[in-house]
Amino acid sequence: MENPNHIGEARIRVRYAETDQMGVVYHANYIVSFEVGRVEFLRKLGFEYRLMEQEDDCHIAVAEVRCRFKAPARYDDQILVRTRIKFLRGPLIQFAYEVLHEPRGTMLAEGESTHMVVNSRFERTTLPTKYAEAFERVLTEQNGE
Amino acid sequence: MENPNHIGEARIRVRYAETDQMGVVYHANYIVSFEVGRVEFLRKLGFEYRLMEQEDDCHIAVAEVRCRFKAPARYDDQILVRTRIKFLRGPLIQFAYEVLHEPRGTMLAEGESTHMVVNSRFERTTLPTKYAEAFERVLTEQNGE
Amino acid sequence: MENPNHIGEARIRVRYAETDQMGVVYHANYIVSFEVGRVEFLRKLGFEYRLMEQEDDCHIAVAEVRCRFKAPARYDDQILVRTRIKFLRGPLIQFAYEVLHEPRGTMLAEGESTHMVVNSRFERTTLPTKYAEAFERVLTEQNGE
Amino acid sequence: MENPNHIGEARIRVRYAETDQMGVVYHANYIVSFEVGRVEFLRKLGFEYRLMEQEDDCHIAVAEVRCRFKAPARYDDQILVRTRIKFLRGPLIQFAYEVLHEPRGTMLAEGESTHMVVNSRFERTTLPTKYAEAFERVLTEQNGE
Repeated sequence: MENPNHIGEARIRVRYAETDQMGVVYHANYIVSFEVGRVEFLRKLGFEYRLMEQEDDCHIAVAEVRCRFKAPARYDDQILVRTRIKFLRGPLIQFAYEVLHEPRGTMLAEGESTHMVVNSRFERTTLPTKYAEAFERVLTEQNGE
Repeated sequence: MENPNHIGEARIRVRYAETDQMGVVYHANYIVSFEVGRVEFLRKLGFEYRLMEQEDDCHIAVAEVRCRFKAPARYDDQILVRTRIKFLRGPLIQFAYEVLHEPRGTMLAEGESTHMVVNSRFERTTLPTKYAEAFERVLTEQNGE
Repeated sequence: MENPNHIGEARIRVRYAETDQMGVVYHANYIVSFEVGRVEFLRKLGFEYRLMEQEDDCHIAVAEVRCRFKAPARYDDQILVRTRIKFLRGPLIQFAYEVLHEPRGTMLAEGESTHMVVNSRFERTTLPTKYAEAFERVLTEQNGE
Repeated sequence: MENPNHIGEARIRVRYAETDQMGVVYHANYIVSFEVGRVEFLRKLGFEYRLMEQEDDCHIAVAEVRCRFKAPARYDDQILVRTRIKFLRGPLIQFAYEVLHEPRGTMLAEGESTHMVVNSRFERTTLPTKYAEAFERVLTEQNGE
């Protein structure tokens, strides 16, 4: 069972700008929705990604991203992005995402992103303790469920 | 050995709009570069994706996309996107991409996208023969090399 | 005095994707925020732009847009887009926008967009009565204030 | 008469990502095409905007932008962006743009952008002499024609 405390939830209303001539959300925009979801996951744990960058020079650079498209989202749809952490191994972090059509609850897309902790010069660095401890705590509780 | 005739090549100059506050190309924009590469691959085979949609009601909807980020691209960089077909199985097509920094030749990103052939109502359909034959021919020649 | 009932209010959280290498929101994204504001203005009047297109084949195509940039917005900023109608003359509609940094209340950008009512084939058409009446009512009340 | 030496020319192929559900290029993307045009105008004068930022800490921040939309551009269209300088007054520079459908030569959009020369902290600064002199020379020659 998932503990809802460990799931970031971001709500996005589809913009006209995000549609394409097929009349649906252009696929690369789901990758942007993952970013929005990740930031809300961090906020739920009490962190602001803006401050991770500014105060701790800690940047979660994307090393790999993967997305499976299940059903098209359309203009003005209300989308829910559910984000959780999958693993933390040294400088590597993986998040998993579900993108849902909120009123209908249908799955639109799902995916994962793997990140490397770097400083502002893109040099590999260690995740500051406060973040690592919070992520480890979430992972332990997820596994214990 | 790769037959250069079976590699689509698209050249892209990085726009300011495509950078982010890390001073590099925002990662989701590589997924857009895959689209640009795919279209040039088709053009090299003699096909215009625009006409595939308009005249044959044949749309190559994205079912899955995957991208591994190797090195950051920066503003005004000249990027080369090399695209080839990996497989064709019924209504499924997979393309593979390499995104290179053109003057330096370094790999910036690589990935794959899997597509489903659909009509304009997103109903699964068959790839019209002229495309299927061309793709099969390329795949046979690639394997024979 | 402005009647707050005639101001659409849209709230937007700045995404990483929307920043550029100056560390601020890339200017063209404000034009997208105008679109978001316009849709919320219509929603406040009881209209869904999605349905205007689908049910009435009424599309508010952009004929001109203008934006003055006052102060930069930054990543994760909470932005408020305030939208009102400026005029309605036959098939022409003009909206005006203020983009504010919500917690600080400072003006980030302001602008106008002029639209032409067209059908899905981009042919000039008349605004269906229900919309025209609602817009006229708002304009009359604004002028009477 | 325009001196073609004083017109930057940028060619852009419309991407699927840039279309919207009306089947045409989403309007805010023309503002991005202005950026692409401006950079090619500078390149024609012998300047790289990338180096203006890096070596001279000279950033041409956008203060105002205006665009009039004449005809829709569609997917895979080949677009030509013609850019020229309109004025230089202290820290203010204005550029004008014409966006054309290249094979047909029809006007798609036209507009202007006004810029303020700033440093990387967005403080108003003076345009370094080498740029100011080149711009003045172009302006003088334009007026003399």
